[in-house]
This record gives sequence, C-alpha cells and structure tokens, in this order.
Amino acid sequence: MNVSASSRPIPVLEVFGPTIQGEGMSIGRKTMFVRTAGCDYRCSWCDSKFTWDGSAKDQIRMLSPEQIVDELLDLGGDTFDHVTISGGNPLLLPQIAYLIQELHGRGIRTAVETQGSRWQDWLVRIDEVTLSPKPPSSGMETDFDVLDDIVARLREASGRRDLCLKIVIFDEEDLTYARFVHKRYPDVPFILQTGNPQVAGEVQDHVSSLLQRYEWLIGRLSDLPDLKDARALPQLHTLVWGNKRGV
Amino acid sequence: MNVSASSRPIPVLEVFGPTIQGEGMSIGRKTMFVRTAGCDYRCSWCDSKFTWDGSAKDQIRMLSPEQIVDELLDLGGDTFDHVTISGGNPLLLPQIAYLIQELHGRGIRTAVETQGSRWQDWLVRIDEVTLSPKPPSSGMETDFDVLDDIVARLREASGRRDLCLKIVIFDEEDLTYARFVHKRYPDVPFILQTGNPQVAGEVQDHVSSLLQRYEWLIGRLSDLPDLKDARALPQLHTLVWGNKRGV
Ligand code: SF4
Ligand code: SF4
Repeated sequence: MNVSASSRPIPVLEVFGPTIQGEGMSIGRKTMFVRTAGCDYRCSWCDSKFTWDGSAKDQIRMLSPEQIVDELLDLGGDTFDHVTISGGNPLLLPQIAYLIQELHGRGIRTAVETQGSRWQDWLVRIDEVTLSPKPPSSGMETDFDVLDDIVARLREASGRRDLCLKIVIFDEEDLTYARFVHKRYPDVPFILQTGNPQVAGEVQDHVSSLLQRYEWLIGRLSDLPDLKDARALPQLHTLVWGNKRGV
Repeated sequence: MNVSASSRPIPVLEVFGPTIQGEGMSIGRKTMFVRTAGCDYRCSWCDSKFTWDGSAKDQIRMLSPEQIVDELLDLGGDTFDHVTISGGNPLLLPQIAYLIQELHGRGIRTAVETQGSRWQDWLVRIDEVTLSPKPPSSGMETDFDVLDDIVARLREASGRRDLCLKIVIFDEEDLTYARFVHKRYPDVPFILQTGNPQVAGEVQDHVSSLLQRYEWLIGRLSDLPDLKDARALPQLHTLVWGNKRGV
C-alpha cells in the first residue's frame, strides 16, 4: 500500500446509521454508511447527485480514516459490525485502503458499491463488492474492457468475498442491456433493481408507483429463460423513507 | 430412501410461478412454488390457514412427484431453475424425497421453509433450508430439543446447502424470543421478518401499515448490540400483491 495515498484524507458527505442496507445482495442487513464525494459518471436518474453536482459542496468534509471510524463508533456504538462505503464512486479514492484496514482491524465487515469504471487495489479486500454498471437509461456508456478487467481481478484475487452484479432497470432497453451483462459474466450472482424515476423531494404516490414498477420487473424476470437464477429487488429504503437522506 | 414412502402421492394445494421468492435469504430470487397441505401448528396469524383449516379441503390434489414436475414445466417452461416447497409444513411428508430427486435430476434447485418441528431425512438434500420457529405472538411453543436436533443434523450432513433462521416479529416479546434463538444458534444466518397482522382479504392502507411495521423493526434492529449481523426484511409479495393467493 502507498502510505502517502493511504493517509490522505477522504472527502466524506455523509456518515450515518445504524440502519439496513436497502438494496442488493445484502438487502436488509444491518449496516452503517459512509458516503464519499465525487463521481466520474453523470447518470440521468442518479439518486446521489449531491455527491458530484456541487449542490452539497460545502458539506464535504475531509476526514482521516481514524476520524471516520470515530464517527461511526459515536453513532453506532457496539451495535454494528458492517460498514457500507458508497458514493459517488468510492473507487476514485485510493486512500480508502486505510479505512478498510482500520475497519477490519476492529472486526467490521466492509461493503462497496461501484459502477465498475475504475480499479483500486483495495477492492480485493472488501468483503461484499457490488458492481452496478449503468444501463442505457442512465445516459452513460459502459466500458466493458474495464469491467472485464475488474471482474477478472476480483476472481483471481485470493481471499473470500461476495461479489454481485446489480443493474437498475427502467425499461425494456435496460433489460436488454442487463441480459447482455448477465451473459458476459454468467457466474456472478445477478440482481435486477427497480428504477426510481423521482429521486428528489417528496413524491405523491411514490410507494405505489415504485411497487408497480417492481411488479412489472417481476413479470419480465418471470418470462425470461436467460435470467433463470436472477433476483428482482426494489430499494427498501426508498419504500420506507422516500427520498430522505441519511436513513 | 423408503421406496413405498417416496412413491406415495403428495397432498398439494397450489402449484404456481414463475414469480419471486418474496421473503427470507433468497428474497427476490426467481422461483416456482409448490404448496403442500397440512400443518402440525395453528399459528394465530398464519397466512396459509387454508392449508390446514379445512376451508380449501376440496382443492387438495394428491399428486405424484412426476405430476408435480409436469405441472411446474407446463407453467414455467424453460424459464426457471428453482422450486420452493412451502406449506403448511412440508416436513410432515416423507414422500417429498422423491420430488426433490426428480427436481435435482433436471438441474433444478430446491428450497424449503418449515417451523422446525419435525425432521425428514430429505431435508439434508434441500439446497436452501429456512427454519422459521414461531414467536410467542403465534400462540405456539417451540420445542427447542427438536430444533436443536434439526440444526445439528443439518450441520453434520455432507454437501453444500444454505441454511437460515427467520423469525416473524410482531412485538417486543417476539423480539426477545428472536434474540434468544439467535444466541442459541449464533452461526446460523438470521433474519427478522415484519409480521402481517391482516392476512385475509383486501386491507385498506395495507402497504403503508406494513411499511410502518418494517420501519419499526429496522429501528429496533439498529438498537440491539446482540443482533449485529442480522437482517430485517418485509414480505415483498405482500407489499406488491397484498393477500392474493398464487402470485
Ligand atoms: S455512478 Fe452512481 S453516483 Fe455516479 S452518477 Fe451514476 S448513479 Fe450517481
Ligand atoms: S407453521 Fe406456518 S403454515 Fe403452520 S400454522 Fe404456523 S404459519 Fe401457518
């Protein structure tokens, strides 16, 4: 590990919990969240735009790994053993290596979600890696050479970790993309996630519109012979708390 | 395997799918369902009372394993690779052994949920076993000698399988029970599930009342230091379809 990189402070937007992981392979799992600032993508429906659009610029704090751990312990005391690092894209930050080391040193499991556009060596030390490449509705384009490389490196790395692919689905085009991704990495556990088209503010009938989207997704998953071993999941935190931050 | 037992027909109430597993460790996973008739419990809030209260007596069909597989294939074609056997309590039926064999012979994974009151040798051949002992609000009492024995036998059995404990939570007393269970089997993945107090017919504001219960459960889970590595989950099928059967 590069010591100067690892001791560099981390740009943090939110530290919160304990709560549950609302989505993906560890859905429902008790966890704390550390949300880092900055993203190399600009997804049209990003639910964390404030991490990169400048609107929360003055809320970004430059924290050392020790300060982050202190804050996690202040909030969660002895009630947690799992921390999710989310963004933005945490893979922009080499210095997260040292945060992982601090957490593991305390017996705390780590999870990360990323779109899979960048590599950092610390990724192999994360216990639960979610790769969430973005479908056409996001307006972004996947660099499959980079994603291939990330999946290959994680496969080759020693140590036990959980890995999954999770694709947000808004429409048929996204589903076509998802099927392509699943075919490319058939052995990686695969999750389709209901898209949330209204990511800001209070929305009328939000829950029922999300559940309708989820029902549609279940129906499509049911039909498709090439998606036998997939999961379809909503975002539970959005059902419970809408677009509120910090829960 | 006892051949005469395995060729005995199975009392079946429902065969349906493909849909998703709405709860537990494989939440969101595409699956087909086979619901067997009969239960040795009488839970106050049972959401499948028709499997044992006589109300659906004339819908019970005595089907051979081959007939069940034919019906699954008629419904699901080549779109599925996973079948969930639910009840009632499927563990009352030794002849399910042969159904499992038929399914595995076709490369289909199997899941079972049971309260953990009875043993059958075929349980070790199930790929995903959910033990769901019933908390005080059910009105039932857990025989922990039997549950100990089931957990021990599953642990000792060769072969890979997923095992979890899932407890339905209505109130603080149920939560106390759940903590006791988790402490007794600390290594078994542990899930708290939101209780559904209104299990029949159409219910006004059902979704919002279920989400409120879920939010309460997340809050309690967050507080408890002895439930670090637990999950809290709602029943997704109940959020999407209410109390409708066969979805
Ligand atoms: S990759 Fe994630 S954080 Fe970045 S813009 Fe897309 S949704 Fe937002
Ligand atoms: S054990 Fe399950 S099927 Fe049997 S009465 Fe209780 S909830 Fe109903």
